[in-house]
Amino acid sequence: MKRIAVFTSGGDAPGMNAHIRAVERTAHKHGLEVIGIVGGYSGMMSGHMEVLDRIRTANILDRGGTVLKTSRCPEFLEPEGRTQAMEQLRSHGVDGVIACGGDGTFHGAHLLFEEHGIPIVGTPGTIDNDLWGTDFTIGYDTAINTAAEAIDKIRDTADSHGRLFFVEVMGRHAGFIAMDVGVACGAEYIAVPESMTDIEELYKRIIAQGRDQRTIVIVGEGDELGGAYKLSQLIEERYGLTSKVSILGHMQRGGSPTVRDRVLAARLGAASVQALLDGKTDVMVGEVAGRVELVPLADTWSHRKSVPSYLIELATMLV
Amino acid sequence: MKRIAVFTSGGDAPGMNAHIRAVERTAHKHGLEVIGIVGGYSGMMSGHMEVLDRIRTANILDRGGTVLKTSRCPEFLEPEGRTQAMEQLRSHGVDGVIACGGDGTFHGAHLLFEEHGIPIVGTPGTIDNDLWGTDFTIGYDTAINTAAEAIDKIRDTADSHGRLFFVEVMGRHAGFIAMDVGVACGAEYIAVPESMTDIEELYKRIIAQGRDQRTIVIVGEGDELGGAYKLSQLIEERYGLTSKVSILGHMQRGGSPTVRDRVLAARLGAASVQALLDGKTDVMVGEVAGRVELVPLADTWSHRKSVPSYLIELATMLV
Amino acid sequence: MKRIAVFTSGGDAPGMNAHIRAVERTAHKHGLEVIGIVGGYSGMMSGHMEVLDRIRTANILDRGGTVLKTSRCPEFLEPEGRTQAMEQLRSHGVDGVIACGGDGTFHGAHLLFEEHGIPIVGTPGTIDNDLWGTDFTIGYDTAINTAAEAIDKIRDTADSHGRLFFVEVMGRHAGFIAMDVGVACGAEYIAVPESMTDIEELYKRIIAQGRDQRTIVIVGEGDELGGAYKLSQLIEERYGLTSKVSILGHMQRGGSPTVRDRVLAARLGAASVQALLDGKTDVMVGEVAGRVELVPLADTWSHRKSVPSYLIELATMLV
Amino acid sequence: MKRIAVFTSGGDAPGMNAHIRAVERTAHKHGLEVIGIVGGYSGMMSGHMEVLDRIRTANILDRGGTVLKTSRCPEFLEPEGRTQAMEQLRSHGVDGVIACGGDGTFHGAHLLFEEHGIPIVGTPGTIDNDLWGTDFTIGYDTAINTAAEAIDKIRDTADSHGRLFFVEVMGRHAGFIAMDVGVACGAEYIAVPESMTDIEELYKRIIAQGRDQRTIVIVGEGDELGGAYKLSQLIEERYGLTSKVSILGHMQRGGSPTVRDRVLAARLGAASVQALLDGKTDVMVGEVAGRVELVPLADTWSHRKSVPSYLIELATMLV
Repeated sequence: MKRIAVFTSGGDAPGMNAHIRAVERTAHKHGLEVIGIVGGYSGMMSGHMEVLDRIRTANILDRGGTVLKTSRCPEFLEPEGRTQAMEQLRSHGVDGVIACGGDGTFHGAHLLFEEHGIPIVGTPGTIDNDLWGTDFTIGYDTAINTAAEAIDKIRDTADSHGRLFFVEVMGRHAGFIAMDVGVACGAEYIAVPESMTDIEELYKRIIAQGRDQRTIVIVGEGDELGGAYKLSQLIEERYGLTSKVSILGHMQRGGSPTVRDRVLAARLGAASVQALLDGKTDVMVGEVAGRVELVPLADTWSHRKSVPSYLIELATMLV
Repeated sequence: MKRIAVFTSGGDAPGMNAHIRAVERTAHKHGLEVIGIVGGYSGMMSGHMEVLDRIRTANILDRGGTVLKTSRCPEFLEPEGRTQAMEQLRSHGVDGVIACGGDGTFHGAHLLFEEHGIPIVGTPGTIDNDLWGTDFTIGYDTAINTAAEAIDKIRDTADSHGRLFFVEVMGRHAGFIAMDVGVACGAEYIAVPESMTDIEELYKRIIAQGRDQRTIVIVGEGDELGGAYKLSQLIEERYGLTSKVSILGHMQRGGSPTVRDRVLAARLGAASVQALLDGKTDVMVGEVAGRVELVPLADTWSHRKSVPSYLIELATMLV
Repeated sequence: MKRIAVFTSGGDAPGMNAHIRAVERTAHKHGLEVIGIVGGYSGMMSGHMEVLDRIRTANILDRGGTVLKTSRCPEFLEPEGRTQAMEQLRSHGVDGVIACGGDGTFHGAHLLFEEHGIPIVGTPGTIDNDLWGTDFTIGYDTAINTAAEAIDKIRDTADSHGRLFFVEVMGRHAGFIAMDVGVACGAEYIAVPESMTDIEELYKRIIAQGRDQRTIVIVGEGDELGGAYKLSQLIEERYGLTSKVSILGHMQRGGSPTVRDRVLAARLGAASVQALLDGKTDVMVGEVAGRVELVPLADTWSHRKSVPSYLIELATMLV
Repeated sequence: MKRIAVFTSGGDAPGMNAHIRAVERTAHKHGLEVIGIVGGYSGMMSGHMEVLDRIRTANILDRGGTVLKTSRCPEFLEPEGRTQAMEQLRSHGVDGVIACGGDGTFHGAHLLFEEHGIPIVGTPGTIDNDLWGTDFTIGYDTAINTAAEAIDKIRDTADSHGRLFFVEVMGRHAGFIAMDVGVACGAEYIAVPESMTDIEELYKRIIAQGRDQRTIVIVGEGDELGGAYKLSQLIEERYGLTSKVSILGHMQRGGSPTVRDRVLAARLGAASVQALLDGKTDVMVGEVAGRVELVPLADTWSHRKSVPSYLIELATMLV
């Protein structure tokens, strides 16, 4: 192996830049050349690539987003798209690939390997933490802290007015962000996509707080009933309680990464280069119980990672 | 004058606690007793009051929200409500009142003075900065920094994806927040309530950025066309451009106040006590060009404060 | 068991308030009464205690420091001191104690149990992360993020001037903070208490950066050679290189806790109450590889917890 | 005028990047070419310059430090140095210069104009706020907020332990930072360089807080008695009070600029280009009472700007 490529794909996540830097540094320490593919699978198909060196990766590790850009690329879902991408990789002399992203990214990587045999290693880069095979994904820790800081601010105003707030956080079909942030912010109720919200139980929790008391309900965006606006509406229609709604939105994807995200991004960056050198392919490098682990890419989306049960217990216990 | 009361009313704003502390400290330095009215005009009507001392106001100046709570109180709009409030003030031995809030708060204060003659001084506490008679209101500086930090984060993801974003900020009918934040964050376009947005011009600005380039449009919540969602929709319908929308929402009201807000809150707190001691009433204490100024309460809402023209010029010049 | 007490002791750490709240909530869910001992072992000896309820623990979980105060108490090192403390606990009807702090706190707790038989469970509350039996201590995650944010700022100025900086972080005799922060901030060299710094090697790393390039050396406060000032001086004396020094200091102990610290504090709070109910004593509840574990108090200080080897490897690999 | 140059010099300050961007954008809107001089007067002498365009100044306005680097350059103090610099400016076709920095920078600019006649306009870029002719300097608002956030954290631990802290802030020979931050953080005493600290009065203030109460003394770095360490020592020697010391240090120079600093930087950037176009030279553009003003460069250092008297009064009133 002489030259590897790295790219970021799907939703961007804080820590991706620290990850790119770690791949560049580790690869060069091992005598490899490193290329950055710009714009995810789109850039792979169009051959938009740039040489990565110390100067390019200087002063990026504390920045949100990804200097290699990212995209969603439907063309890559077609075999022709992948063939075109493989030709570009070949013409750029790429011997191995590191793909940082979520399950969509890994699907593509898996197919690229299956069809064209190029060694490819995935790294978990998504704020949603919904990948099996790693305790935490790169970007998750930053996202939960960003959300918690926003909710701490909302609590100021909720407290001052004695108001009921529904606050919607990201997380796609998984309740990780909602549960961690809900426990961290002392939410009175946490609605997650994994289970149907019982409106009557929600109502009981709200009124248990007492009239004119601040009450904060955290809602994961994939909530079955339809999110924060919908819950707010249902509570008003059925029980006549008015409330305010806040959708935290895309700010949760940005910001300077936390220490934990930077260190995880660095560790998995170094480990992914090592995995390629060790002849591994079609795997994701993750961190499980403090150790780096390799799992088949297909396992990351076919196995379902659940929200830790202790969080669910704490959410009930500490109300 | 032996005993004064202070309260916060309307939307809460960061710095209100620093203001309450300053009133308490200044009043005691002048030998006055101080009472805090809890929950704005509601608390004034129901006699919900508490004695303020050093211990009560310790460790609050860096906290968002207001320890005296706040509310919107329609009953106070009726003469009977104000009479009831005045009886409570009398029965608590209150000789003068400091009212921290926005124009709704000042309307009430003005009527209370007119009808019952109790000395009352207003202080500008609102994140919207829409009060004539002061360059800045307490809470405004914190709100613009909170909004800018969120937009900096959104730019991370907008940049990584080359996306168009419509970001809605608070400010009611005034474009102060939108303009200051838009200039500070290098927004490509700023839509303010003061003028009708020209959709064609907006479109031209967006495409001038180039295809697949990050573009951020800041929208003041009082925007004539209906806010960020509406603008996003119009741009898609007319020109086929897709975009993301983020409504920053209530987090802009909370958070630990900035230095400028704490110092302004302290200065106007001390000045409002002094104004009562000097026999002033029916006035607001504000800061104009660095000096404390008194203006009649009625002027604060009848005169319109405009967004500084230099901000509008900068917004055009620096795109 | 009908009534338990909780206290914080030694250096304060962010998350202690979230911990106190979790103990209060969990205990009440289990029908226990809860008392807070004010000021650590001093308060235990003098009987300075207060009842903890929902109202007392409302709105504290996002605050740094500890509402129960803390202290260092040499009198408790004497048997007489502990006897006096035990009498106070008895007279307040305390059946079990939760002690949140570091190794000094646990020494005291261990002796109190040995001599007087009162059930006592420790929880790891210290920013230094130097307790065996838990992967992370409460407060550590906040401290490393606070330090990293400060170093990110220092890098701005170091970069602009092309300067060499020695930045000293906390951690007592352990290099956890230095290593995590050093890797997270891309430090050019990390000096930890666990090993003697080789000045010549340090010099080589510095000049490898190139003349007039920003270089940041992170120094753990327990560094054998004497800390950041001493290293700066040695590098100047031997090699004629001038540098700037920054001691981050006590700000690393404060601030609103991160999500991870709040959740850890909550989890160990709930677990410590459960441990008392289960008849456990003379143990610390910690979190190891994602699970709550109980370890004898004496093990927490007699076993030495080492900085993870992967951090040391990353620090070398990513320079 | 066809081509102008801009540079940053002396201590770096947050907002310098926003300033560089504003100069670039404004100049191009007026049809001027813009060159960035790298490394202040050093780069001017060595001809280290680069063309500035939209791409170079994209995504810098929220970053601390200065992308044009800075330095202290003793050679420029000699007439030969300035002659050499002028030759470089001529050979690069520079018709006008914008110099962003503090009094040292302006001294150099003034001499360059006097000796060589090149139009030169200064802009106030320093965290110290010690320049006459502008109410605030670029970087000051960020520095006071950075300091206040650190002190809020120190208060957590000071409060928890009931400790006396001496916290030293930057500001060179001026007490602006100390006074603004001291008032904002509710300091019990503020020692500024402008007046000799009375140790007995300081002691009285400390003990007035009560035994075992948190007490925070803010010390400006230019304090006559020698700074925070010296004051701490004097209070211990004379009165036997022990205390902790924290020197906030260089982190105060960095960080993402506040909205106020970004807007000020933008406004003065646009105004400085306009000043050159209007044929002005040997002047600084500042902001006084909300308006842009031009003052002779020599006035900026020969007139002394004082800390506003209202801050001094508040510091006494609100203790």
